Amino acid sequence: MTRFGRRRESLAELAREAADAALDEAGRPDVDHCFFGLQSPSELAGDANAASMLASALGLVPAAATRVESAPSSGASALEAAWFAVRSGDVRTALVVGAESMTRVPTPVVSRVLAKTMDARERALGLTMPAYGALAARRYLWRYGYSREDLAAVPVKAHAHGARHPRAHFAKEVSVEDVLASPMIADPLRTFDCAPVSDGAAAVVLTADRGDVRVTSVGHATDAYAFSDRTYTDALTSFRATRVAAERAFARSTLTRADVDVLEVHDAFSVLEPMSLEDLGFFGTGTALRATLAGDTSLGGPLPVNAGGGLKARGHPVGATGVAQVVELVEQLTGRAGGRQVDGARVGLAQSVGGFGTNIVVTLLEVAA
Amino acid sequence: MTRFGRRRESLAELAREAADAALDEAGRPDVDHCFFGLQSPSELAGDANAASMLASALGLVPAAATRVESAPSSGASALEAAWFAVRSGDVRTALVVGAESMTRVPTPVVSRVLAKTMDARERALGLTMPAYGALAARRYLWRYGYSREDLAAVPVKAHAHGARHPRAHFAKEVSVEDVLASPMIADPLRTFDCAPVSDGAAAVVLTADRGDVRVTSVGHATDAYAFSDRTYTDALTSFRATRVAAERAFARSTLTRADVDVLEVHDAFSVLEPMSLEDLGFFGTGTALRATLAGDTSLGGPLPVNAGGGLKARGHPVGATGVAQVVELVEQLTGRAGGRQVDGARVGLAQSVGGFGTNIVVTLLEVAA
Repeated sequence: MTRFGRRRESLAELAREAADAALDEAGRPDVDHCFFGLQSPSELAGDANAASMLASALGLVPAAATRVESAPSSGASALEAAWFAVRSGDVRTALVVGAESMTRVPTPVVSRVLAKTMDARERALGLTMPAYGALAARRYLWRYGYSREDLAAVPVKAHAHGARHPRAHFAKEVSVEDVLASPMIADPLRTFDCAPVSDGAAAVVLTADRGDVRVTSVGHATDAYAFSDRTYTDALTSFRATRVAAERAFARSTLTRADVDVLEVHDAFSVLEPMSLEDLGFFGTGTALRATLAGDTSLGGPLPVNAGGGLKARGHPVGATGVAQVVELVEQLTGRAGGRQVDGARVGLAQSVGGFGTNIVVTLLEVAA
Repeated sequence: MTRFGRRRESLAELAREAADAALDEAGRPDVDHCFFGLQSPSELAGDANAASMLASALGLVPAAATRVESAPSSGASALEAAWFAVRSGDVRTALVVGAESMTRVPTPVVSRVLAKTMDARERALGLTMPAYGALAARRYLWRYGYSREDLAAVPVKAHAHGARHPRAHFAKEVSVEDVLASPMIADPLRTFDCAPVSDGAAAVVLTADRGDVRVTSVGHATDAYAFSDRTYTDALTSFRATRVAAERAFARSTLTRADVDVLEVHDAFSVLEPMSLEDLGFFGTGTALRATLAGDTSLGGPLPVNAGGGLKARGHPVGATGVAQVVELVEQLTGRAGGRQVDGARVGLAQSVGGFGTNIVVTLLEVAA
């Protein structure tokens, strides 16, 4: 994973930095197929043929190259596509690169592109992605008896973890007071409740040969694109697609939730972290924020969540995030996470969210037997 | 495949029309994973989360949904991704939909988006996709001793075939004189040498169960993104990525070129058809246009090419094209191609081109044994 943040480099330069590091670590295997997780390279980086462009920029021609996109879960979807390819027996070695260059274009352009990941009717009503997050936050706090201050525990923890990550966008601690004093984005969510706009890339080599870490399984599910079409109970504080994707991932493995030592979840907005932990089946409904307040999801606690700082502190170059989560888990499972190491971690789970709960990928990784 | 052409329907409506037809024909199986081949849904149809949007619009939630993109070979890449998924054993039934809505946005916007599929430096020099095609045409005609009039045989044949396809964008015959009298696009290419801008969708169901037609293999390769970086001989009249992709497809099968009964090749510009036929290994260098002039690649000839009218006459909704080629082959291999049927066709090959030879997918299909 490259350093995330405001980067001067182009999309291709960021992708190359991550890919070279991954390929070096893997011993420079011949790459049969590259899978690129990119959300909006045409609108954000000016290239509508990014798979070809990056295969060239990475020096991998004539390897096959495919771009995979599912909004902010593009990186996770690219890893899934590569996993299918390697398991099919047709591809021996796949390179997965998630990348996005966002800060070089004006913020209103970024906002306009990100807004297009929502149902057009709801967008026309004035809803934005932070507004969905705000509705969820308000409902979650009210429904389960939490205060606005309680919710600040999520970004405070993210920054405490991110402060130990040398490549994080924001490698610094913040206090509850900092969170509550930060500018309002969509009431009750403030700046420190929302993942930043970042540049960066992350890469993974998947191979049919034995490695240090195994992709145990991937689960993937969708939900109704328009939020207003979700008619199940507590749709605002629970994503059915997370529940189904997690069921699918576990069903394709022999692992149980009790086996999982470390989690990466998609905290694009603070409230999404406890929601996700509950939907993934690690905490009862409405209890994950209490566990976070008690320190149970912090480094040193029984179930560390977002040890790498999460989207909030590590940064959120949208296409890169799903791969960065997996890179974090690989570093954790191989004991190379330095000051943010989860001792003895052998099984990790990553959850990546595309859209407001519309497209969710859950990936299970474990130390290779 | 929907009717291609200028359609009033939205991207979702077009995709649904094709998907419903494919799913009905397959007996309405449960879909585990949808793969959508879409080139530029955000810029052309206003949606940057099209995989989720379409899974919802098609009534397939909570099936997994992934968008696959490789510029104009997006549809072929989506089919390849689905093929990997089904062969991996993790997905039993995949739905592949290629679709694009292009005519509802102003032509200058379409042109700007399509131009972004080229290397930025060459774009800055004033090159456009038709200009690359024109350079290739001029060189091919000069190098192998053909006249401009000879090249008209390609679109004349495409339209002769397309006139037999009830869902083609241009189901009408044209003469050599019509081609030579049509407006100049990029000298020597005229309007009738260039595939049109179209709306439409095509869909295929891939399943681990036995069907009428088998995807035998897929080969996929890239070439240098900047044309000026291609240093091999005759780079202007030969795409190395076609040669490598074809080698890979045949190497993954027990088929030989002699087994192939019907071909679909990516004739976005007339000259690409003979170039592709030579790179695929069916004709010697510089001879494919002669074979076309002799009628060898026409319906009734020994090796019918683009029996469905090709991109030129069938139309070219960019993301749909790679899937439409496969739909054409399936109709041919199952004897349902009506007035354009290739008698006794048992093996078909489709070649799809993303960018000016940068990303090429070759798919082999055969009647299931």
